[in-house]
Amino acid sequence: MKLDIKPLDKSWLEAARERQNRLTKPPGSLGFLEEVGVRLAAIQQTLKPSLGRGAVIVCAADHGVTAEGISAYPPEVTPQMVLNFLAGGAAINQIARACEAEVYVLDVGVRGELPSQEGLIGAKVRSGSGNIALEPAMTPAQAERAIQAGMSAARRAISQGATVLAAGDMGIGNTTAAAALTAALLGLDAEAVTGRGTGVDDQRYGRKLEVVRASLVRAKNAVGDLAQADPVEVLAQLGGLEIAAIAGVYLAGAEAGLPLVSDGFPVTCGALLATRINPLVRDYLLAGHRSVEPGHTRQLEVLGLRPLLELDLRLGEGTGAVLSFPVLRSAAAMLWMATFEEAGVSGG
Amino acid sequence: MKLDIKPLDKSWLEAARERQNRLTKPPGSLGFLEEVGVRLAAIQQTLKPSLGRGAVIVCAADHGVTAEGISAYPPEVTPQMVLNFLAGGAAINQIARACEAEVYVLDVGVRGELPSQEGLIGAKVRSGSGNIALEPAMTPAQAERAIQAGMSAARRAISQGATVLAAGDMGIGNTTAAAALTAALLGLDAEAVTGRGTGVDDQRYGRKLEVVRASLVRAKNAVGDLAQADPVEVLAQLGGLEIAAIAGVYLAGAEAGLPLVSDGFPVTCGALLATRINPLVRDYLLAGHRSVEPGHTRQLEVLGLRPLLELDLRLGEGTGAVLSFPVLRSAAAMLWMATFEEAGVSGG
Repeated sequence: MKLDIKPLDKSWLEAARERQNRLTKPPGSLGFLEEVGVRLAAIQQTLKPSLGRGAVIVCAADHGVTAEGISAYPPEVTPQMVLNFLAGGAAINQIARACEAEVYVLDVGVRGELPSQEGLIGAKVRSGSGNIALEPAMTPAQAERAIQAGMSAARRAISQGATVLAAGDMGIGNTTAAAALTAALLGLDAEAVTGRGTGVDDQRYGRKLEVVRASLVRAKNAVGDLAQADPVEVLAQLGGLEIAAIAGVYLAGAEAGLPLVSDGFPVTCGALLATRINPLVRDYLLAGHRSVEPGHTRQLEVLGLRPLLELDLRLGEGTGAVLSFPVLRSAAAMLWMATFEEAGVSGG
Repeated sequence: MKLDIKPLDKSWLEAARERQNRLTKPPGSLGFLEEVGVRLAAIQQTLKPSLGRGAVIVCAADHGVTAEGISAYPPEVTPQMVLNFLAGGAAINQIARACEAEVYVLDVGVRGELPSQEGLIGAKVRSGSGNIALEPAMTPAQAERAIQAGMSAARRAISQGATVLAAGDMGIGNTTAAAALTAALLGLDAEAVTGRGTGVDDQRYGRKLEVVRASLVRAKNAVGDLAQADPVEVLAQLGGLEIAAIAGVYLAGAEAGLPLVSDGFPVTCGALLATRINPLVRDYLLAGHRSVEPGHTRQLEVLGLRPLLELDLRLGEGTGAVLSFPVLRSAAAMLWMATFEEAGVSGG
């Protein structure tokens, strides 16, 4: 994959920090917002950053692993929810309206045909992934195509004016794929990263753990040490077509030099994958929120990201990412404050 | 004080919870946002709440206790910052713009004359409070007048279209007054509630602790058991004219039946005082954020409020409260989602 991602220019970080300390507030009194504002300034290469127009690319796909009975919902919910996104009835639609973001829906692997509809980007690579307990999720070529689909969708959003990007996810079964993939990429056990997703009971949770374990054993047999293998090979084994597309969204966003916001567990899995494909993606990443999925905290730790919000969300769709846009907008706006000198205020 | 505050109608809480569970998301998957949405529905008495226009009343006053050397900033910063608010250069101005809120500035006790200016509500009760280490902050009649000034300012904002209210604070020295008043109202020691405010060094922090202790002893000698005394008498002893006005903002807001958002330590002190004057205020209160001041966590615990944001802010001005408006807006918007039935989505 040929990518042209530039590292952040550290001189902008320093210049923005210096400006923060001259603004009419006690130094450090804006807490984490100050750090975020400095990061936005460096990404945008200006001392007066502004977030501008937000977009969330909700990547949707089905998962063969639902055959193992690991989700509280039947797989037909994936296409039903895609239609709900398009009709404006889902959580992400309400949050996007409240937080000023455009919603794009990308079908990268939903089972069955979806009606061609305004707002739906059709880029189906295959009709759902393979059952990762038994077989690879997809071929490496399909993984590449799914990543490219995410990149194209991100570029479309950018060409239509987006200046901050988030990815969202929809795919019944995808916390199972995200758990397997996260465990593989981070070299962790299934237990450390497997949560209850949309809310499975103890029996299904036990089954989910078994399935994650089995898929890790199978994938390791296929490609060797999972933490060292080519990340696209690991992705092809453990999949999630939408997780591949999400990685693509962040890769294209980083190429465009935009601030990128992560959501919950499956989306941050895609972001993590993107950083394994190109570590410079990390320079552009901000964590929208921390979900209750235990594996999400592991991902954030490895990425070194502090979440902007901690509201016990576990919905996905990009909800937690977009919900943080106003906080980012405020963090950027802080650098527009008057300095002590400009305002004629006595320093400390 | 004659107040007409209605308790929340519990049937709205139940109806909104019932609707939350039929929306197209796994039950509980929106975490704390669900609880907040239900609360907003009950406050607004509708199953489809919407936050509407926000306002923050920044209440400003000076503190005689600054003579004791308890702040990192000189007292002239209070009027300077008021002018900065009016010129739009302060943190609260940027956050209010980013989060869609109107800023009102109330002078309830700033030392010296401020120029009459659009946006400044002049209601000076006295020119700064007394030095609480040595004397009462104000008389009980002045405390009542300061509360009334806050109530009038809130009513003005409401008459101009505000449908959600926050209070902000500006007053060099006011974390000392807030510490004394919080300790008094909650029956706590000075240590439990005294923090570093705008960022005092160890020496000033030690002095601040001594001053809080001395003021508590003095106030107790004057009015008896502080946790049991008339809250307005305690306020008059330990003061903060702006803290009195903040209490007034929340009292008038609760009378008007609006959602009310608390900010950091001095503002939540005012909110706490309002609940001591009339416990029904609590029904309308939401916590915008948790500041790093240790006493703020004590206040939130006693009020039983979970903060929407935890970003290590310690600036005041209402910044943390207004920063949470978009989260509240989103929590309200969630109830506009489609139900499983409406969207034709299969339930779990």
